[in-house]
Amino acid sequence: MEPGSRGAAPGGVSVSAVLPAGGSGERLGGATPKQFCAVQGRPLVSYAVRAMERISWISDIIVVVSPENIETMKTIIEKYGHKRVTVVEGGITRHRSIFNGLKVFAENEFSSHLLQKPEVVIIHDAVRPFVEEDIISKVVIAAKEYGAAGAIRPLVSTVIASAADGCLDHSLERARYRASEMPQAFLFDIIYEAYQQCTDYDLDYGTECLHLALKYCKTNAKLVEGTADLWKVTYKRDLYAAESIIKDNLSQQVCVITNVKETLAQVGFLLPESLKSQIKVEVISVSLSKNDSRLQNIISGQCYNFVCVNEKRCALQETQELVDMLEKSNIPLLCPVVLILVHLDISESNSFSIGMEDLTTIKKFARENKKKNILVYGLLIQYK
Amino acid sequence: MEPGSRGAAPGGVSVSAVLPAGGSGERLGGATPKQFCAVQGRPLVSYAVRAMERISWISDIIVVVSPENIETMKTIIEKYGHKRVTVVEGGITRHRSIFNGLKVFAENEFSSHLLQKPEVVIIHDAVRPFVEEDIISKVVIAAKEYGAAGAIRPLVSTVIASAADGCLDHSLERARYRASEMPQAFLFDIIYEAYQQCTDYDLDYGTECLHLALKYCKTNAKLVEGTADLWKVTYKRDLYAAESIIKDNLSQQVCVITNVKETLAQVGFLLPESLKSQIKVEVISVSLSKNDSRLQNIISGQCYNFVCVNEKRCALQETQELVDMLEKSNIPLLCPVVLILVHLDISESNSFSIGMEDLTTIKKFARENKKKNILVYGLLIQYK
Repeated sequence: MEPGSRGAAPGGVSVSAVLPAGGSGERLGGATPKQFCAVQGRPLVSYAVRAMERISWISDIIVVVSPENIETMKTIIEKYGHKRVTVVEGGITRHRSIFNGLKVFAENEFSSHLLQKPEVVIIHDAVRPFVEEDIISKVVIAAKEYGAAGAIRPLVSTVIASAADGCLDHSLERARYRASEMPQAFLFDIIYEAYQQCTDYDLDYGTECLHLALKYCKTNAKLVEGTADLWKVTYKRDLYAAESIIKDNLSQQVCVITNVKETLAQVGFLLPESLKSQIKVEVISVSLSKNDSRLQNIISGQCYNFVCVNEKRCALQETQELVDMLEKSNIPLLCPVVLILVHLDISESNSFSIGMEDLTTIKKFARENKKKNILVYGLLIQYK
Repeated sequence: MEPGSRGAAPGGVSVSAVLPAGGSGERLGGATPKQFCAVQGRPLVSYAVRAMERISWISDIIVVVSPENIETMKTIIEKYGHKRVTVVEGGITRHRSIFNGLKVFAENEFSSHLLQKPEVVIIHDAVRPFVEEDIISKVVIAAKEYGAAGAIRPLVSTVIASAADGCLDHSLERARYRASEMPQAFLFDIIYEAYQQCTDYDLDYGTECLHLALKYCKTNAKLVEGTADLWKVTYKRDLYAAESIIKDNLSQQVCVITNVKETLAQVGFLLPESLKSQIKVEVISVSLSKNDSRLQNIISGQCYNFVCVNEKRCALQETQELVDMLEKSNIPLLCPVVLILVHLDISESNSFSIGMEDLTTIKKFARENKKKNILVYGLLIQYK
């Protein structure tokens, strides 16, 4: 996507993102750092990058990885076709890695070319794959107003302080405290100033960016209530959960597309009725050759299943328009898109046939699109 | 199991357990409270009950449920054959439910008969299915010494306090704090006294038992580092994780049992060698008709897969001993146990046959054991 065609950021500010991905994943108990663990065959970090990439008003996405994983990360970017991503070498701690990520906007040291300094920078973990545009917008808007902002969640367990003897000193009143989660966002100048000011002790033992902004720039971050899906993949069980959530998302929604003919509209009504007890169904009556904004919205909402009801036997040219739209959206990069072409036979004839030529054409069409991660199925139905 | 035959509790104290299961599961976002959600076809609460039931030195297990779920809970107890369980009606908050659970040991009001008051009472959540005997022993021992004890875990996220304006007030230094988890254990008299003393405000808004013991009995609980599997099922993603962990556990271990003949021992060596790249393998050479303590240990370690290598064609009498041991252990109550009987034919004869009578006997044996959740498979191998 050309810089000029990007959508406007909330509040009209320029925005970039830094994703620290340098962790060793000790708590996961495996040899592979968790951000590189495969979930449904795709590394976790790729989901987080994708979550940022989908938002057109984020200019640059900086992924900070440890030196030994730079090549791995570059391979991932190539394999999954990620755009607007710069890979930066991390430091030995989280804060040092984030600082390195910020430096590409301010110093020549870390990048072959200095990137355009954004007004607001988002910081998000590579191991939080399910962040939505809504919460990212909210922290960006709040960061513009307050200088810093971060997503929070209610505490799941009571937090306690232990005394030196390993016994309970006191427990915190759960309602007064929150878990600090990601994404966070900052006016670039504030968080960069905080990192420049902070001590080696902060860089080596701290983990909380909001704390640095408060300590060194007297900026009290605005706290934004996040949704349950912001959680961080920390333990092996979280990988299991991530896998199941992704599988679930894939089957959650179907878009039924019919053209405007009356008979088809009727089928387009009956089909969703029978589907909707099992799945979220959107129905639109539209000719695919027209660039329809409702269809665009459904696609950008990450729908993975489409049923196109058509009376023409082999309306591949129109279907090609949908495929093009899907490809441009980058949706199939994340997971396979299922496209079911229902060819409705409404003629009075009792014969039920399809020409060899049509069949060959559809097969070829399906084979070509499979490479793009779009799975095409054809269905011929007699309807009288 | 008769009371007299129970194993001795750590420290020689009498121990019972209270499992609050009255929650509404709001955070899960479903209509069914999470403790009754099915994981691999079995309600979550049944796993937690089972985790307690497996420990022979726990005398009574009190499950506290809201009035509308009493019948559901009784059905679960019957269906899964839970023993030593008393169902008690809960209050409107967590603390009130736990208090009701404790009352069955001290007051006649809540139970048709007063249960024997234990020296130490364990409190554990119905939505933490993976608690191991090791951590339960540790908190019981610590409770005997300190009056109160609870499992803790490192914090996953930084904890912050917000100011009245919704902005960050301060963040806590993560290393100084811990998440308070379950199980917890108390000298019965201490926690019961604490509940009797505490205010309505505590009962309605508090959640932390360790806090009550400190506030009302000046008892500083001993904090015991727990393992990662102590986490609480809170969100839908946690149900996904629980399901995957249970599936994983089922396939993690196999016990290969051979009798002591040399030829068999050799097979007993080759088989584990080829299996152990994929699965944890224990090998024991033992005649099944002897009550072997190593085999007992493996069974009580919750092994679900057994391969018995035997040269006799139809050594069902010996296999029956293993089935009896498994049944007595209650292991098959939780998940199906797979039993593969390998009949090794080491005769010089080239004929490879099995009598119809043998076949009928094995089939009947397999059918009977399937009812007990023990899946028996037979395998005949020629070995020269």
